Amino acid sequence: MTIEKNRTKDQAAIRELIDGFVKAIRAKDIHGVMSVFAPEVVSFDLSPPLQHGGGEIFVKRWQELFESYQDPIDYEVRDLSITAGDDLAFSHSLNGVSGVMKNGQKSDRWLRWTACYRKFNGKWLIVHEQVSVPVDLRSGKAVLDLKP
Amino acid sequence: MTIEKNRTKDQAAIRELIDGFVKAIRAKDIHGVMSVFAPEVVSFDLSPPLQHGGGEIFVKRWQELFESYQDPIDYEVRDLSITAGDDLAFSHSLNGVSGVMKNGQKSDRWLRWTACYRKFNGKWLIVHEQVSVPVDLRSGKAVLDLKP
Repeated sequence: MTIEKNRTKDQAAIRELIDGFVKAIRAKDIHGVMSVFAPEVVSFDLSPPLQHGGGEIFVKRWQELFESYQDPIDYEVRDLSITAGDDLAFSHSLNGVSGVMKNGQKSDRWLRWTACYRKFNGKWLIVHEQVSVPVDLRSGKAVLDLKP
Repeated sequence: MTIEKNRTKDQAAIRELIDGFVKAIRAKDIHGVMSVFAPEVVSFDLSPPLQHGGGEIFVKRWQELFESYQDPIDYEVRDLSITAGDDLAFSHSLNGVSGVMKNGQKSDRWLRWTACYRKFNGKWLIVHEQVSVPVDLRSGKAVLDLKP
């Protein structure tokens, strides 16, 4: 198999990982979500702190996110770019998350998502991610209403 | 040369690129800053829009940033992690930027920085980056006072 074919195969494997991630979020499937992350993941997440690790703290953040929405959560990935090497890869996309919050308010946000991957025994896992919205530095406000 | 040695060499080359980037920011050297980015870079930047490309728009954003500070800008990189493969790499760090703004106000912020690199003819360049601060989703405010 040529290197180019392997790269296409690796890109396809990462696309599949992301598809599974999206499906797991929609289904509020915490095990499905966690299965795409390496245990040692470093996350620069949407809300404080500046950074956090994997494990229990990460599970708790996802559970709180799930609990803040009434069913179902809608989640979609746009403008996805995947770059894959032999055992490292990265992707970036604009991820739309929308739904009705527990307090009845409708929420519809687009997040910027960068994910960095390593291949462990043939399986790709996310070892780092950054999730954010832009901020208006004059007002100090997060800009939550931008659309791709 | 073994693969491990090449990786160490690639990590060192990326560390050097980041050192040069930091020096260029401190010196308000726009050419030095631009030299670390590939022309086709996709940036998920601190302030809107959601994403922008390289070229003139990118130069203008950096120039406006430089002009918003009185001399000198202080810039430092902490908790730097670099993962390098043969021709792809990624890094993440917490970047402190501080100085006195043109309006006399002191500014001191820590940014989360993720950079993704490709090697072009032996030279590493940033093809994607994300820069952000966390946001408090209850208040809708950017959280600008976190320290690593």
